[in-house]
Amino acid sequence: MTRIRLTLAYDGTDFSGWQLQPHDRTVQGDLEKALGRILGHSPRVHGSGRTDSGVHAMGQVCHFDCPPERADIPWQRALNSMLPTDIRVLESARVPEMFHARYSATGKIYEYVLWHTREFCLPQRRRFVWACGSVDYSLMLAGADALLGEHDFAAFQNVGTPVKSTVRTVSDISFRTGLSEHETVWRFEANGFLKQMVRNIVGCLVACGRGRITPQEVRGLLKGRNRMAAPATAPPQGLSLASVLYSSEK
Amino acid sequence: MTRIRLTLAYDGTDFSGWQLQPHDRTVQGDLEKALGRILGHSPRVHGSGRTDSGVHAMGQVCHFDCPPERADIPWQRALNSMLPTDIRVLESARVPEMFHARYSATGKIYEYVLWHTREFCLPQRRRFVWACGSVDYSLMLAGADALLGEHDFAAFQNVGTPVKSTVRTVSDISFRTGLSEHETVWRFEANGFLKQMVRNIVGCLVACGRGRITPQEVRGLLKGRNRMAAPATAPPQGLSLASVLYSSEK
Repeated sequence: MTRIRLTLAYDGTDFSGWQLQPHDRTVQGDLEKALGRILGHSPRVHGSGRTDSGVHAMGQVCHFDCPPERADIPWQRALNSMLPTDIRVLESARVPEMFHARYSATGKIYEYVLWHTREFCLPQRRRFVWACGSVDYSLMLAGADALLGEHDFAAFQNVGTPVKSTVRTVSDISFRTGLSEHETVWRFEANGFLKQMVRNIVGCLVACGRGRITPQEVRGLLKGRNRMAAPATAPPQGLSLASVLYSSEK
Repeated sequence: MTRIRLTLAYDGTDFSGWQLQPHDRTVQGDLEKALGRILGHSPRVHGSGRTDSGVHAMGQVCHFDCPPERADIPWQRALNSMLPTDIRVLESARVPEMFHARYSATGKIYEYVLWHTREFCLPQRRRFVWACGSVDYSLMLAGADALLGEHDFAAFQNVGTPVKSTVRTVSDISFRTGLSEHETVWRFEANGFLKQMVRNIVGCLVACGRGRITPQEVRGLLKGRNRMAAPATAPPQGLSLASVLYSSEK
Protein backbone atom coordinates (compact mmCIF):
# COMPACT_ATOMS: atom_id res chain seq x y z
CA MET A 1 0.00 0.00 0.00
CA THR A 2 1.09 3.59 -0.58
CA ARG A 3 0.58 6.15 2.15
CA ILE A 4 -0.87 9.58 1.24
CA ARG A 5 -0.79 12.60 3.56
CA LEU A 6 -3.41 15.34 3.23
CA THR A 7 -3.43 18.83 4.70
CA LEU A 8 -6.98 20.11 5.22
CA ALA A 9 -8.91 23.26 5.99
CA TYR A 10 -12.49 23.09 7.17
CA ASP A 11 -15.27 25.26 8.47
CA GLY A 12 -16.33 23.24 11.52
CA THR A 13 -19.74 24.94 11.87
CA ASP A 14 -21.81 22.22 10.24
CA PHE A 15 -19.81 19.20 11.44
CA SER A 16 -20.18 17.12 14.59
CA GLY A 17 -16.41 17.36 14.89
CA TRP A 18 -13.65 15.38 13.20
CA GLN A 19 -14.32 11.84 14.34
CA LEU A 20 -16.55 9.38 12.48
CA GLN A 21 -20.06 9.10 13.99
CA PRO A 22 -22.73 6.62 12.95
CA HIS A 23 -25.45 9.22 12.30
CA ASP A 24 -23.85 12.66 12.33
CA ARG A 25 -21.89 14.50 9.69
CA THR A 26 -18.16 14.56 10.49
CA VAL A 27 -15.01 15.60 8.63
CA GLN A 28 -13.52 12.11 8.79
CA GLY A 29 -16.82 10.67 7.58
CA ASP A 30 -17.04 13.01 4.59
CA LEU A 31 -13.41 12.33 3.67
CA GLU A 32 -13.81 8.55 3.82
CA LYS A 33 -16.96 8.83 1.71
CA ALA A 34 -15.19 10.97 -0.93
CA LEU A 35 -12.22 8.56 -1.01
CA GLY A 36 -14.68 5.69 -1.37
CA ARG A 37 -16.14 7.30 -4.49
CA ILE A 38 -12.67 7.67 -6.00
CA LEU A 39 -11.19 4.30 -4.98
CA GLY A 40 -14.28 2.11 -5.01
CA HIS A 41 -13.71 1.32 -1.34
CA SER A 42 -13.39 3.63 1.69
CA PRO A 43 -9.95 3.47 3.31
CA ARG A 44 -9.65 4.41 6.98
CA VAL A 45 -8.52 8.02 7.35
CA HIS A 46 -6.23 8.75 10.34
CA GLY A 47 -6.23 12.32 11.61
CA SER A 48 -3.58 14.02 13.73
CA GLY A 49 -6.24 14.23 16.42
CA ARG A 50 -9.91 15.04 16.88
CA THR A 51 -11.42 18.48 16.68
CA ASP A 52 -14.67 19.17 18.56
CA SER A 53 -18.00 20.03 17.02
CA GLY A 54 -17.86 23.63 15.74
CA VAL A 55 -14.04 23.82 15.81
CA HIS A 56 -12.32 24.82 12.55
CA ALA A 57 -9.03 23.88 10.90
CA MET A 58 -6.59 25.66 8.61
CA GLY A 59 -3.97 22.90 8.74
CA GLN A 60 -5.36 19.58 9.97
CA VAL A 61 -3.23 16.66 8.77
CA CYS A 62 -4.40 13.11 8.05
CA HIS A 63 -3.23 10.07 6.11
CA PHE A 64 -4.68 7.04 4.37
CA ASP A 65 -3.33 4.08 2.44
CA CYS A 66 -4.19 3.26 -1.15
CA PRO A 67 -3.18 0.55 -3.62
CA PRO A 68 0.16 1.56 -5.26
CA GLU A 69 -1.39 1.54 -8.75
CA ARG A 70 -3.82 4.29 -7.67
CA ALA A 71 -1.26 6.42 -5.81
CA ASP A 72 -0.72 8.79 -8.74
CA ILE A 73 -4.24 10.21 -8.59
CA PRO A 74 -4.03 14.03 -8.24
CA TRP A 75 -5.54 13.78 -4.77
CA GLN A 76 -6.00 17.47 -4.03
CA ARG A 77 -7.97 18.14 -7.21
CA ALA A 78 -9.84 14.82 -7.15
CA LEU A 79 -10.95 15.16 -3.53
CA ASN A 80 -11.87 18.84 -3.80
CA SER A 81 -14.16 18.02 -6.71
CA MET A 82 -15.92 15.38 -4.55
CA LEU A 83 -15.94 17.08 -1.14
CA PRO A 84 -18.51 19.62 0.07
CA THR A 85 -17.12 23.19 0.01
CA ASP A 86 -16.73 23.33 3.80
CA ILE A 87 -13.73 20.95 3.53
CA ARG A 88 -10.81 21.73 1.20
CA VAL A 89 -7.65 19.73 0.66
CA LEU A 90 -4.81 22.27 0.70
CA GLU A 91 -2.03 19.83 -0.10
CA SER A 92 -1.44 16.13 -0.76
CA ALA A 93 1.78 14.14 -0.79
CA ARG A 94 3.09 10.57 -0.86
CA VAL A 95 4.82 9.80 2.42
CA PRO A 96 6.86 6.85 3.74
CA GLU A 97 4.83 4.15 5.49
CA MET A 98 6.67 5.21 8.67
CA PHE A 99 4.63 8.42 8.71
CA HIS A 100 1.54 8.48 10.93
CA ALA A 101 -0.57 11.66 11.11
CA ARG A 102 -1.09 11.17 14.84
CA TYR A 103 1.91 9.28 16.18
CA SER A 104 4.54 11.14 14.14
CA ALA A 105 3.26 14.55 15.24
CA THR A 106 5.70 16.39 17.51
CA GLY A 107 3.47 19.34 18.28
CA LYS A 108 0.46 21.39 17.31
CA ILE A 109 -0.48 25.02 16.88
CA TYR A 110 -4.01 26.17 17.62
CA GLU A 111 -5.44 29.66 17.18
CA TYR A 112 -8.35 31.17 19.06
CA VAL A 113 -10.07 34.37 17.91
CA LEU A 114 -11.57 36.82 20.42
CA TRP A 115 -13.98 39.58 19.36
CA HIS A 116 -13.44 42.23 21.99
CA THR A 117 -14.25 45.79 20.97
CA ARG A 118 -17.96 46.08 20.17
CA GLU A 119 -20.88 45.15 22.29
CA PHE A 120 -22.31 43.05 19.45
CA CYS A 121 -20.28 40.86 17.16
CA LEU A 122 -20.65 41.42 13.42
CA PRO A 123 -22.97 38.57 12.25
CA GLN A 124 -20.56 37.74 9.41
CA ARG A 125 -17.90 36.79 12.02
CA ARG A 126 -20.06 35.03 14.61
CA ARG A 127 -19.13 31.52 13.47
CA PHE A 128 -15.40 32.20 13.93
CA VAL A 129 -14.98 34.23 17.12
CA TRP A 130 -15.88 34.33 20.78
CA ALA A 131 -17.45 37.71 21.51
CA CYS A 132 -15.99 37.79 25.02
CA GLY A 133 -16.27 41.57 25.49
CA SER A 134 -13.65 43.86 26.91
CA VAL A 135 -10.56 42.16 28.41
CA ASP A 136 -7.15 43.38 29.57
CA TYR A 137 -4.48 41.73 27.43
CA SER A 138 -1.62 42.40 29.83
CA LEU A 139 -3.52 40.46 32.51
CA MET A 140 -4.16 37.65 30.01
CA LEU A 141 -0.44 37.50 29.14
CA ALA A 142 0.45 37.44 32.84
CA GLY A 143 -1.90 34.48 33.27
CA ALA A 144 -0.39 32.82 30.18
CA ASP A 145 3.08 33.11 31.74
CA ALA A 146 1.97 30.74 34.50
CA LEU A 147 1.06 28.12 31.88
CA LEU A 148 4.20 28.24 29.73
CA GLY A 149 6.60 25.33 30.03
CA GLU A 150 6.12 21.73 31.16
CA HIS A 151 3.19 21.25 33.54
CA ASP A 152 0.55 18.74 34.53
CA PHE A 153 -2.51 20.18 32.77
CA ALA A 154 -5.10 17.92 34.47
CA ALA A 155 -7.06 21.00 35.59
CA PHE A 156 -7.35 22.00 31.91
CA GLN A 157 -8.53 18.64 30.58
CA ASN A 158 -12.18 17.71 30.07
CA VAL A 159 -13.37 14.18 30.64
CA GLY A 160 -12.77 11.92 27.63
CA THR A 161 -10.64 9.03 26.46
CA PRO A 162 -8.15 8.24 29.26
CA VAL A 163 -4.60 9.39 28.49
CA LYS A 164 -1.34 8.00 29.91
CA SER A 165 -0.09 11.33 31.10
CA THR A 166 -1.59 14.80 31.53
CA VAL A 167 1.84 16.47 31.37
CA ARG A 168 2.35 18.69 28.33
CA THR A 169 4.84 21.38 27.35
CA VAL A 170 3.34 24.67 26.16
CA SER A 171 6.04 26.54 24.23
CA ASP A 172 4.11 29.62 23.09
CA ILE A 173 1.07 31.69 24.03
CA SER A 174 0.96 34.98 22.13
CA PHE A 175 -1.50 37.16 20.25
CA ARG A 176 -1.75 39.31 17.14
CA THR A 177 -4.40 41.52 15.55
CA GLY A 178 -7.01 39.49 13.71
CA LEU A 179 -8.94 39.95 10.49
CA SER A 180 -10.43 43.22 11.71
CA GLU A 181 -9.54 45.66 14.46
CA HIS A 182 -12.24 44.04 16.61
CA GLU A 183 -10.47 40.69 16.64
CA THR A 184 -7.38 39.29 18.30
CA VAL A 185 -5.91 35.92 17.40
CA TRP A 186 -4.37 33.96 20.27
CA ARG A 187 -1.76 31.39 19.30
CA PHE A 188 -1.04 28.26 21.36
CA GLU A 189 1.84 25.92 20.62
CA ALA A 190 2.56 22.73 22.57
CA ASN A 191 3.98 19.26 22.09
CA GLY A 192 0.39 18.06 22.42
CA PHE A 193 -2.96 19.14 23.87
CA LEU A 194 -5.40 17.30 26.13
CA LYS A 195 -9.15 17.17 25.41
CA GLN A 196 -10.48 20.75 25.19
CA MET A 197 -7.21 22.00 26.71
CA VAL A 198 -6.98 25.08 24.45
CA ARG A 199 -10.59 26.07 25.12
CA ASN A 200 -10.03 25.57 28.86
CA ILE A 201 -6.88 27.70 28.75
CA VAL A 202 -8.72 30.43 26.80
CA GLY A 203 -11.56 30.37 29.35
CA CYS A 204 -8.95 30.77 32.09
CA LEU A 205 -7.05 33.58 30.33
CA VAL A 206 -10.25 35.52 29.63
CA ALA A 207 -11.09 35.18 33.34
CA CYS A 208 -7.63 36.69 34.00
CA GLY A 209 -8.30 39.45 31.46
CA ARG A 210 -11.55 40.32 33.24
CA GLY A 211 -9.73 40.49 36.55
CA ARG A 212 -11.67 37.53 37.97
CA ILE A 213 -8.57 35.46 38.74
CA THR A 214 -4.90 36.32 39.17
CA PRO A 215 -1.78 34.73 37.63
CA GLN A 216 -1.01 33.33 41.10
CA GLU A 217 -4.38 31.62 41.12
CA VAL A 218 -3.60 30.14 37.67
CA ARG A 219 -0.47 28.57 39.21
CA GLY A 220 -2.68 27.25 42.01
CA LEU A 221 -5.13 25.74 39.51
CA LEU A 222 -2.31 23.84 37.78
CA LYS A 223 -1.11 22.49 41.12
CA GLY A 224 -4.62 21.55 42.24
CA ARG A 225 -5.18 19.36 39.11
CA ASN A 226 -8.93 19.89 39.57
CA ARG A 227 -10.95 20.77 36.44
CA MET A 228 -13.98 21.80 38.57
CA ALA A 229 -11.95 24.56 40.23
CA ALA A 230 -10.98 26.18 36.91
CA PRO A 231 -12.96 28.76 34.89
CA ALA A 232 -15.46 27.56 32.26
CA THR A 233 -14.47 26.21 28.84
CA ALA A 234 -14.43 28.81 26.03
CA PRO A 235 -16.94 28.16 23.20
CA PRO A 236 -15.78 26.06 20.22
CA GLN A 237 -16.35 28.45 17.31
CA GLY A 238 -13.34 30.69 18.12
CA LEU A 239 -10.92 27.76 17.83
CA SER A 240 -8.99 26.60 14.79
CA LEU A 241 -6.30 23.93 14.39
CA ALA A 242 -3.66 26.03 12.62
CA SER A 243 -1.01 23.39 11.98
CA VAL A 244 0.41 20.06 13.04
CA LEU A 245 4.17 19.88 13.50
CA TYR A 246 6.33 16.96 12.41
CA SER A 247 10.06 16.86 13.03
CA SER A 248 11.98 16.69 9.78
CA GLU A 249 13.54 13.26 10.46
CA LYS A 250 10.16 11.50 10.68
CA MET B 1 -46.34 58.07 15.92
CA THR B 2 -42.60 58.33 16.44
CA ARG B 3 -40.21 57.25 13.70
CA ILE B 4 -37.19 55.11 14.59
CA ARG B 5 -34.26 54.49 12.24
CA LEU B 6 -32.14 51.35 12.57
CA THR B 7 -28.75 50.55 11.08
CA LEU B 8 -28.28 46.81 10.60
CA ALA B 9 -25.64 44.22 9.83
CA TYR B 10 -26.61 40.76 8.69
CA ASP B 11 -25.12 37.56 7.38
CA GLY B 12 -27.36 36.93 4.37
CA THR B 13 -26.45 33.24 4.05
CA ASP B 14 -29.54 31.82 5.72
CA PHE B 15 -32.08 34.42 4.55
CA SER B 16 -34.22 34.47 1.41
CA GLY B 17 -33.18 38.11 1.05
CA TRP B 18 -34.47 41.25 2.73
CA GLN B 19 -38.08 41.36 1.65
CA LEU B 20 -40.92 39.73 3.57
CA GLN B 21 -42.00 36.37 2.09
CA PRO B 22 -44.99 34.30 3.17
CA HIS B 23 -43.06 31.09 3.83
CA ASP B 24 -39.34 31.90 3.75
CA ARG B 25 -37.09 33.43 6.35
CA THR B 26 -36.21 37.06 5.50
CA VAL B 27 -34.50 39.91 7.32
CA GLN B 28 -37.58 42.13 7.18
CA GLY B 29 -39.70 39.25 8.44
CA ASP B 30 -37.41 38.54 11.41
CA LEU B 31 -37.26 42.25 12.29
CA GLU B 32 -41.04 42.68 12.19
CA LYS B 33 -41.43 39.57 14.34
CA ALA B 34 -38.94 40.85 16.95
CA LEU B 35 -40.64 44.28 17.01
CA GLY B 36 -43.97 42.52 17.42
CA ARG B 37 -42.70 40.76 20.54
CA ILE B 38 -41.55 44.08 21.99
CA LEU B 39 -44.52 46.26 21.00
CA GLY B 40 -47.36 43.71 21.06
CA HIS B 41 -48.03 44.40 17.38
CA SER B 42 -45.73 44.19 14.34
CA PRO B 43 -45.16 47.56 12.68
CA ARG B 44 -44.22 47.61 9.00
CA VAL B 45 -40.44 47.93 8.58
CA HIS B 46 -39.29 49.98 5.58
CA GLY B 47 -35.80 49.17 4.27
CA SER B 48 -33.57 51.37 2.11
CA GLY B 49 -34.01 48.70 -0.55
CA ARG B 50 -34.01 44.94 -0.95
CA THR B 51 -30.99 42.72 -0.79
CA ASP B 52 -31.05 39.38 -2.64
CA SER B 53 -30.94 35.96 -1.08
CA GLY B 54 -27.38 35.31 0.17
CA VAL B 55 -26.34 38.99 0.04
CA HIS B 56 -24.96 40.48 3.29
CA ALA B 57 -25.13 43.91 4.91
CA MET B 58 -22.83 45.93 7.15
CA GLY B 59 -24.94 49.10 7.03
CA GLN B 60 -28.49 48.45 5.83
CA VAL B 61 -30.88 51.18 7.02
CA CYS B 62 -34.59 50.82 7.79
CA HIS B 63 -37.28 52.65 9.73
CA PHE B 64 -40.54 51.91 11.53
CA ASP B 65 -43.12 53.89 13.48
CA CYS B 66 -44.06 53.27 17.09
CA PRO B 67 -46.44 54.87 19.59
CA PRO B 68 -44.72 57.94 21.14
CA GLU B 69 -45.03 56.47 24.66
CA ARG B 70 -42.88 53.47 23.59
CA ALA B 71 -40.29 55.50 21.67
CA ASP B 72 -37.79 55.53 24.57
CA ILE B 73 -37.19 51.78 24.46
CA PRO B 74 -33.40 51.14 24.09
CA TRP B 75 -34.03 49.68 20.63
CA GLN B 76 -30.53 48.43 19.87
CA ARG B 77 -30.29 46.39 23.06
CA ALA B 78 -33.93 45.29 23.06
CA LEU B 79 -33.88 44.11 19.45
CA ASN B 80 -30.49 42.40 19.71
CA SER B 81 -31.76 40.37 22.64
CA MET B 82 -34.76 39.20 20.52
CA LEU B 83 -33.14 38.79 17.10
CA PRO B 84 -31.24 35.71 15.90
CA THR B 85 -27.45 36.27 15.89
CA ASP B 86 -27.26 36.59 12.10
CA ILE B 87 -28.92 40.03 12.37
CA ARG B 88 -27.49 42.74 14.64
CA VAL B 89 -28.76 46.28 15.18
CA LEU B 90 -25.65 48.50 15.07
CA GLU B 91 -27.42 51.75 15.85
CA SER B 92 -30.88 53.13 16.54
CA ALA B 93 -32.14 56.73 16.54
CA ARG B 94 -35.34 58.76 16.65
CA VAL B 95 -35.74 60.59 13.34
CA PRO B 96 -38.21 63.22 12.04
CA GLU B 97 -41.30 61.79 10.31
CA MET B 98 -39.92 63.34 7.11
CA PHE B 99 -37.22 60.66 7.09
CA HIS B 100 -37.85 57.62 4.89
CA ALA B 101 -35.22 54.85 4.71
CA ARG B 102 -35.84 54.41 0.99
CA TYR B 103 -37.04 57.74 -0.37
CA SER B 104 -34.63 59.92 1.64
CA ALA B 105 -31.61 57.91 0.49
CA THR B 106 -29.31 59.86 -1.80
CA GLY B 107 -26.92 57.05 -2.56
CA LYS B 108 -25.56 53.65 -1.59
CA ILE B 109 -22.22 51.95 -1.19
CA TYR B 110 -21.87 48.26 -1.92
CA GLU B 111 -18.79 46.10 -1.50
CA TYR B 112 -17.97 42.90 -3.35
CA VAL B 113 -15.21 40.54 -2.21
CA LEU B 114 -13.19 38.52 -4.72
CA TRP B 115 -11.00 35.58 -3.67
CA HIS B 116 -8.33 35.51 -6.31
CA THR B 117 -5.02 33.94 -5.30
CA ARG B 118 -5.53 30.27 -4.49
CA GLU B 119 -7.08 27.60 -6.56
CA PHE B 120 -9.39 26.71 -3.67
CA CYS B 121 -11.10 29.17 -1.39
CA LEU B 122 -10.60 28.72 2.35
CA PRO B 123 -13.86 27.09 3.57
CA GLN B 124 -14.10 29.67 6.38
CA ARG B 125 -14.50 32.44 3.76
CA ARG B 126 -16.70 30.67 1.20
CA ARG B 127 -19.92 32.37 2.36
CA PHE B 128 -18.46 35.85 1.85
CA VAL B 129 -16.42 35.78 -1.35
CA TRP B 130 -16.57 34.86 -5.01
CA ALA B 131 -13.61 32.58 -5.76
CA CYS B 132 -13.28 33.94 -9.29
CA GLY B 133 -9.66 32.84 -9.81
CA SER B 134 -6.86 34.88 -11.29
CA VAL B 135 -7.87 38.25 -12.80
CA ASP B 136 -5.94 41.30 -14.02
CA TYR B 137 -6.96 44.28 -11.88
CA SER B 138 -5.68 46.89 -14.33
CA LEU B 139 -8.03 45.44 -16.97
CA MET B 140 -10.88 45.46 -14.42
CA LEU B 141 -10.22 49.11 -13.60
CA ALA B 142 -10.12 49.97 -17.30
CA GLY B 143 -13.53 48.32 -17.67
CA ALA B 144 -14.77 50.19 -14.58
CA ASP B 145 -13.74 53.50 -16.20
CA ALA B 146 -16.34 52.91 -18.90
CA LEU B 147 -19.07 52.62 -16.25
CA LEU B 148 -18.23 55.68 -14.13
CA GLY B 149 -20.55 58.67 -14.40
CA GLU B 150 -24.19 58.97 -15.52
CA HIS B 151 -25.31 56.20 -17.85
CA ASP B 152 -28.34 54.17 -18.80
CA PHE B 153 -27.60 50.88 -17.02
CA ALA B 154 -30.41 48.85 -18.67
CA ALA B 155 -27.83 46.24 -19.78
CA PHE B 156 -26.87 45.76 -16.12
CA GLN B 157 -30.39 45.36 -14.74
CA ASN B 158 -32.09 42.01 -14.18
CA VAL B 159 -35.82 41.63 -14.70
CA GLY B 160 -37.84 42.73 -11.69
CA THR B 161 -40.21 45.44 -10.52
CA PRO B 162 -40.44 48.02 -13.35
CA VAL B 163 -38.53 51.24 -12.63
CA LYS B 164 -39.20 54.72 -14.06
CA SER B 165 -35.69 55.20 -15.29
CA THR B 166 -32.64 52.97 -15.74
CA VAL B 167 -30.27 55.94 -15.63
CA ARG B 168 -27.92 55.98 -12.62
CA THR B 169 -24.74 57.83 -11.70
CA VAL B 170 -21.85 55.68 -10.53
CA SER B 171 -19.40 57.91 -8.64
CA ASP B 172 -16.81 55.36 -7.52
CA ILE B 173 -15.47 51.93 -8.43
CA SER B 174 -12.26 51.12 -6.57
CA PHE B 175 -10.64 48.26 -4.68
CA ARG B 176 -8.57 47.59 -1.60
CA THR B 177 -6.97 44.55 0.01
CA GLY B 178 -9.50 42.44 1.89
CA LEU B 179 -9.44 40.50 5.15
CA SER B 180 -6.59 38.32 3.91
CA GLU B 181 -4.03 38.63 1.13
CA HIS B 182 -6.22 36.33 -0.97
CA GLU B 183 -9.12 38.77 -1.00
CA THR B 184 -9.82 42.07 -2.70
CA VAL B 185 -12.78 44.26 -1.77
CA TRP B 186 -14.38 46.16 -4.65
CA ARG B 187 -16.32 49.29 -3.67
CA PHE B 188 -19.24 50.64 -5.70
CA GLU B 189 -20.88 53.98 -4.97
CA ALA B 190 -23.86 55.37 -6.90
CA ASN B 191 -26.95 57.51 -6.41
CA GLY B 192 -28.90 54.27 -6.68
CA PHE B 193 -28.58 50.76 -8.09
CA LEU B 194 -30.96 48.76 -10.30
CA LYS B 195 -31.90 45.15 -9.52
CA GLN B 196 -28.68 43.06 -9.35
CA MET B 197 -26.76 45.95 -10.91
CA VAL B 198 -23.67 45.52 -8.69
CA ARG B 199 -23.52 41.77 -9.33
CA ASN B 200 -23.92 42.39 -13.06
CA ILE B 201 -21.16 45.00 -13.01
CA VAL B 202 -18.88 42.62 -11.08
CA GLY B 203 -19.61 39.84 -13.59
CA CYS B 204 -18.67 42.27 -16.37
CA LEU B 205 -15.48 43.52 -14.65
CA VAL B 206 -14.28 39.98 -13.93
CA ALA B 207 -14.85 39.20 -17.64
CA CYS B 208 -12.63 42.25 -18.37
CA GLY B 209 -10.06 41.01 -15.85
CA ARG B 210 -9.94 37.63 -17.59
CA GLY B 211 -9.41 39.32 -20.96
CA ARG B 212 -12.75 38.07 -22.29
CA ILE B 213 -14.11 41.54 -23.08
CA THR B 214 -12.44 44.93 -23.58
CA PRO B 215 -13.29 48.33 -22.05
CA GLN B 216 -14.54 49.37 -25.52
CA GLU B 217 -16.95 46.44 -25.48
CA VAL B 218 -18.19 47.56 -22.02
CA ARG B 219 -19.06 50.94 -23.58
CA GLY B 220 -20.86 49.06 -26.34
CA LEU B 221 -22.84 47.02 -23.78
CA LEU B 222 -24.05 50.22 -22.07
CA LYS B 223 -25.17 51.67 -25.43
CA GLY B 224 -26.86 48.42 -26.49
CA ARG B 225 -29.06 48.38 -23.34
CA ASN B 226 -29.37 44.59 -23.74
CA ARG B 227 -28.92 42.46 -20.60
CA MET B 228 -28.62 39.29 -22.70
CA ALA B 229 -25.49 40.64 -24.42
CA ALA B 230 -23.66 41.27 -21.12
CA PRO B 231 -21.55 38.78 -19.09
CA ALA B 232 -23.23 36.63 -16.41
CA THR B 233 -24.28 37.93 -13.00
CA ALA B 234 -21.69 37.42 -10.21
CA PRO B 235 -22.84 35.15 -7.35
CA PRO B 236 -24.60 36.76 -4.37
CA GLN B 237 -22.34 35.71 -1.48
CA GLY B 238 -19.52 38.14 -2.34
CA LEU B 239 -21.86 41.15 -2.05
CA SER B 240 -22.52 43.33 0.99
CA LEU B 241 -24.52 46.54 1.38
CA ALA B 242 -21.88 48.67 3.10
CA SER B 243 -23.87 51.86 3.73
CA VAL B 244 -26.83 53.95 2.70
CA LEU B 245 -26.18 57.65 2.17
CA TYR B 246 -28.55 60.42 3.28
CA SER B 247 -27.82 64.08 2.61
CA SER B 248 -27.56 66.02 5.86
CA GLU B 249 -30.57 68.27 5.13
CA LYS B 250 -33.02 65.37 4.89
